[in-house]
Amino acid sequence: MADEVLNDISHRRYNLLRGSWLLVSPHRTKRPWQGQQEAPSKTELPSHDPSCYLCPGNQRAQGDTNPAYASTFVFVNDYSAVKESQAAYSPPDQDGTLEKRLLRADPVTGKCYVICFSPEHNLTLADMTPSQILPVIETWTRIYGAHVSPSSPFARLVGPVEAPPRDPHASITQPEAQYRWMQIFENKGAAMGCSNPHPHGQVWTTTGTPEEPAAELVQLMKYRREQGGAHMLADYAELESRKKERVVFENKAFVAVCPWWATWPFEVLVVSRTHKRALVDFDDEERRALAEVMAEVTRRYDNLFETHFPYSMGLHQAPLEGSAEEIESSYFHMHFYPPLLRSATVRKFLVGYEMLAEPQRDITPEQAAARLRDCGGELYRKKL
Amino acid sequence: MADEVLNDISHRRYNLLRGSWLLVSPHRTKRPWQGQQEAPSKTELPSHDPSCYLCPGNQRAQGDTNPAYASTFVFVNDYSAVKESQAAYSPPDQDGTLEKRLLRADPVTGKCYVICFSPEHNLTLADMTPSQILPVIETWTRIYGAHVSPSSPFARLVGPVEAPPRDPHASITQPEAQYRWMQIFENKGAAMGCSNPHPHGQVWTTTGTPEEPAAELVQLMKYRREQGGAHMLADYAELESRKKERVVFENKAFVAVCPWWATWPFEVLVVSRTHKRALVDFDDEERRALAEVMAEVTRRYDNLFETHFPYSMGLHQAPLEGSAEEIESSYFHMHFYPPLLRSATVRKFLVGYEMLAEPQRDITPEQAAARLRDCGGELYRKKL
Ligand SMILES: O=P(O)(O)O[C@H]1O[C@H](CO)[C@@H](O)[C@H](O)[C@H]1O
Ligand SMILES: O=P(O)(O)O[C@H]1O[C@H](CO)[C@@H](O)[C@H](O)[C@H]1O
Repeated sequence: MADEVLNDISHRRYNLLRGSWLLVSPHRTKRPWQGQQEAPSKTELPSHDPSCYLCPGNQRAQGDTNPAYASTFVFVNDYSAVKESQAAYSPPDQDGTLEKRLLRADPVTGKCYVICFSPEHNLTLADMTPSQILPVIETWTRIYGAHVSPSSPFARLVGPVEAPPRDPHASITQPEAQYRWMQIFENKGAAMGCSNPHPHGQVWTTTGTPEEPAAELVQLMKYRREQGGAHMLADYAELESRKKERVVFENKAFVAVCPWWATWPFEVLVVSRTHKRALVDFDDEERRALAEVMAEVTRRYDNLFETHFPYSMGLHQAPLEGSAEEIESSYFHMHFYPPLLRSATVRKFLVGYEMLAEPQRDITPEQAAARLRDCGGELYRKKL
Repeated sequence: MADEVLNDISHRRYNLLRGSWLLVSPHRTKRPWQGQQEAPSKTELPSHDPSCYLCPGNQRAQGDTNPAYASTFVFVNDYSAVKESQAAYSPPDQDGTLEKRLLRADPVTGKCYVICFSPEHNLTLADMTPSQILPVIETWTRIYGAHVSPSSPFARLVGPVEAPPRDPHASITQPEAQYRWMQIFENKGAAMGCSNPHPHGQVWTTTGTPEEPAAELVQLMKYRREQGGAHMLADYAELESRKKERVVFENKAFVAVCPWWATWPFEVLVVSRTHKRALVDFDDEERRALAEVMAEVTRRYDNLFETHFPYSMGLHQAPLEGSAEEIESSYFHMHFYPPLLRSATVRKFLVGYEMLAEPQRDITPEQAAARLRDCGGELYRKKL
């Protein structure tokens, strides 16, 4: 590390991607833990569960029946957080009142999908080979492509696309709005609010750009302007790949690191080595390289504490619609946010100080990366 | 509510205090919950636990013995996240390198205290009367006063103060730095990472101003400049007290609301009606009013689901040191961030979408406030 002393002293690190600081207290893991224990994850599941609303051939909560799908399967979320159409809202227009100044709201429409990663109820990405993960990436690419703005530079790239399913439960049928942001993510494990172990992820697409990607885009554009067109994450991938201390895994197209500014104990950032704006910029080989990185990261996670390692994971890429500068400054990357700290049952809590002041972490990202590097090889469950 | 339609449609609300948006999806609580259940809190605890490191007369982890205290008791955290003195770190000074540009760190020193709220092991703020809570507020005020900068306008106000305890474990004895920020908070309950039910809170004091209060201060100063010296939170308290729809409890000096921009299902903001920069600005009557609000909020929380309601809670006020504008724009308030959503065992998870995109809530703050308003009266445990 640049300076070994950072292994011992309290310090703040700057998250260049979000433009915010966090507190690092490396000595703090020495304190004894008498607090909450997470439930250890159940390991014995059937490959098909008749009561699972995601398994092939089963009925879902609102009555639809899943097809006998063989790879991935996409449907509109039966409990979508945002909808294609809803009653109109126009904010009260009483200029100068306290209401207008202090109580601000904007309507949001959008579309939420669920993507089953596999028909097998008892698989996770960690169990899947890169070639089994590849269809997930291809499905993400298809959904993203189907939603890009006709005015965006991607429209030509994508060409004619298979339309995503329309919401069968939309009460009013209106033309879809052009959405600005597509958030692709996965919550894995009960500790991350996931209520069904069947391997699946979500896609929430909205008319506005949410806070996190908006903050990142500000930082990416700023860097590019200040550094004569250089991309921050290309520079960062190059630096990390050269220094190696935070690298977990790398291949020709991607570098997976515990980033310098990681908040969660074993947080991982996957970043492409060269500038890719979004999924649709990848060729076959790059998609296969991404599948390999996803397999390597999730398998190492499970091996670390020999458990089904919970996490939330997601993609940040170009907005579906945006200015040329916004699109061209966007830089494809993936975040993995896992809560575990010490073992399969002891997690990190981001609570009082973290909520009221700023994020705080206990081990350094360098220590976390070294442990994940050492967890390669076969999945622990296969060795049992 | 200004517009009833916000009870039914997805919308974003603007958090004026942080300067950020969140997504509200009121219809979303209709989905069934098959996910993680929190452990119900244990209700039967002794008033003195020989194995508790916070009870009077007991020995702590690092060997110190607690006095036979009768009200509050303060000591330096045995596992402080920041320390008064540590090895020096100077960031590498190689201008123009990627390291310098991308890997930024700053050392932080500071001091962490633990404050026991009562000698009784089995009390919580919800069990305590306002007159039992008053000493907690007085202790906070004393610690804050003891740390304000000699150059701050508070120095005169505070007068000679009882010095807070020095860290007996500091390896090097150096003069304390002038700290900029004092974060007073409480984590309550296992769900909020608290490992000891003995009623206690923490104080972390640091050389830098953390992200959350820094962001709030930007917003408070901006409003004051734009509104000819008016204070945003005074205007907000007045508006909420007039509209009543988000008010949980109010008295002469304070208003407790589920704020318009609440992220957590039953989040509460306590705000003083008139401009108070910090704890040291309150007189006896105002301190008693604050104790009453704290008793009312925590008792209603416990009554809501008839459980020991977990939360993280904390104070935002003036920095210990700052420019005149920073000090004068600061506005005392308290945040309560509780995780529960549907029952004593079903919490809200701020996970995938929330971590990667932006916070999302299911019920509206107006619905939450109505339920908390209806939970007044005696503590449910006393009625059993
Ligand atoms: O300080 P404690 O009670 O040991 O620890 C608790 O509060 C801290 C401050 O919010 C958090 O960083 C820890 O994750 C949490 O477990
Ligand atoms: O959509 P789900 O899986 O029902 O719900 C889960 O993910 C959502 C998006 O991160 C969160 O808002 C919920 O709190 C969580 O339980």
